[in-house]
Amino acid sequence: MTRIGVFGGMGPSASVDFLDKLVKLTPASRDQDHLPVIVASLPHIHDRSSAILGQGKDPLPQLLAGIEMLNKAEVGVIVIPCNSAHHWFDEMSRSSKAPLLHIAKACVAAIAPGSGARVAVLATRGALASGFYQRELLARGIDFLLPDPQGAQIHIDACIREVKAGRLDISAQHLTQACQEVVRQGATTLIMGCTEITIVRRGADVSGMVLIDSSLELARASVAFALARGWNRPGWDS
Amino acid sequence: MTRIGVFGGMGPSASVDFLDKLVKLTPASRDQDHLPVIVASLPHIHDRSSAILGQGKDPLPQLLAGIEMLNKAEVGVIVIPCNSAHHWFDEMSRSSKAPLLHIAKACVAAIAPGSGARVAVLATRGALASGFYQRELLARGIDFLLPDPQGAQIHIDACIREVKAGRLDISAQHLTQACQEVVRQGATTLIMGCTEITIVRRGADVSGMVLIDSSLELARASVAFALARGWNRPGWDS
Repeated sequence: MTRIGVFGGMGPSASVDFLDKLVKLTPASRDQDHLPVIVASLPHIHDRSSAILGQGKDPLPQLLAGIEMLNKAEVGVIVIPCNSAHHWFDEMSRSSKAPLLHIAKACVAAIAPGSGARVAVLATRGALASGFYQRELLARGIDFLLPDPQGAQIHIDACIREVKAGRLDISAQHLTQACQEVVRQGATTLIMGCTEITIVRRGADVSGMVLIDSSLELARASVAFALARGWNRPGWDS
Repeated sequence: MTRIGVFGGMGPSASVDFLDKLVKLTPASRDQDHLPVIVASLPHIHDRSSAILGQGKDPLPQLLAGIEMLNKAEVGVIVIPCNSAHHWFDEMSRSSKAPLLHIAKACVAAIAPGSGARVAVLATRGALASGFYQRELLARGIDFLLPDPQGAQIHIDACIREVKAGRLDISAQHLTQACQEVVRQGATTLIMGCTEITIVRRGADVSGMVLIDSSLELARASVAFALARGWNRPGWDS
């Protein structure tokens, strides 16, 4: 039980970005210093956002199958680099022997309460309808706003869709517009609450904005969990 | 059995690079067009090159455990983005229900026989001592040379070691020197026969050289194998 279980494929590029962060965040000078990771990249899982909005098939059976697969591989913790999938976090946690780390908790924990930050959550319409980011921000007394459904959100939707289609340049243009619009709405801190969004961050013009990367925060929480338990020590399977 | 099994972690960065290639090589406009992949990233496996040279612990029991884990996850094919590990290819294949694709076969298949190419194999000393690249090149009648153990190979060793330690700039400098030296030895085509080397290719000065990327060729073979069997079609687990 000394392996990180990553339930990925939602989407595949976001999973690769997350795994890259896991490797870069681990202090290592040779292969054997790194953390064992089992990845179940299952891209055929029904669209999470659409299902939350009642417009698509229920992905829960597929999500539970992925959790079962990772538990069979004897992982000691499970993380899911897909924000929208966290709508089913409680059901997945109940079905899992290994604990799950919540991406929104990891993300909101990176914002100091009382900092006066006004947070905008950039996420799928499904994730926003689910409300897990809002609940976490409220619980920690952090002021927040949601993107205008007829304004910034249209660009967030396009940003995510274009990443999944591999058109990163167009996606970055939409992210730039989305960020500028939520700042106009009064946001001082932007949570990139969709792991696709973080992929095009570098290509977007977000200078001067405070951005919180949900993929990076989940990777930090994962590495901290594993290092605290010594999973980087050689010999576990030698 | 409709999933690609990737036995990774040797090293972790090379595995991330390989997964990125799998995603980019797959024709897709949405998550559900992508290929299901199970990754066992087990970085604690004993150093392959040292073991082949009789200077380290035998990694075979760990390699067979990884193959067993992927078979338990019901993968339909197994690929290993680590060249040196292919010294144990036959033993791993015999123990696996899922077929294994050989990285050297995928790589050498990218060179046209009779092209007059003189190939240099850039790999670990262990992989070269194992001889699987030389056997594959001989079998296909392709002329080749090996890096001077006291010259180019010293830079190849340093290039690989520095990648594993995360020092990409220094690594790229060693790759540049290694490539220039094998070209001086008479090479016209360079096989990057170590998946760490391909990571720093962009940072190296290799202009005018014909390079074959073993990680890319294995990714191409993997995607072709999976697409030919329709593993990208949604519904397999819906």
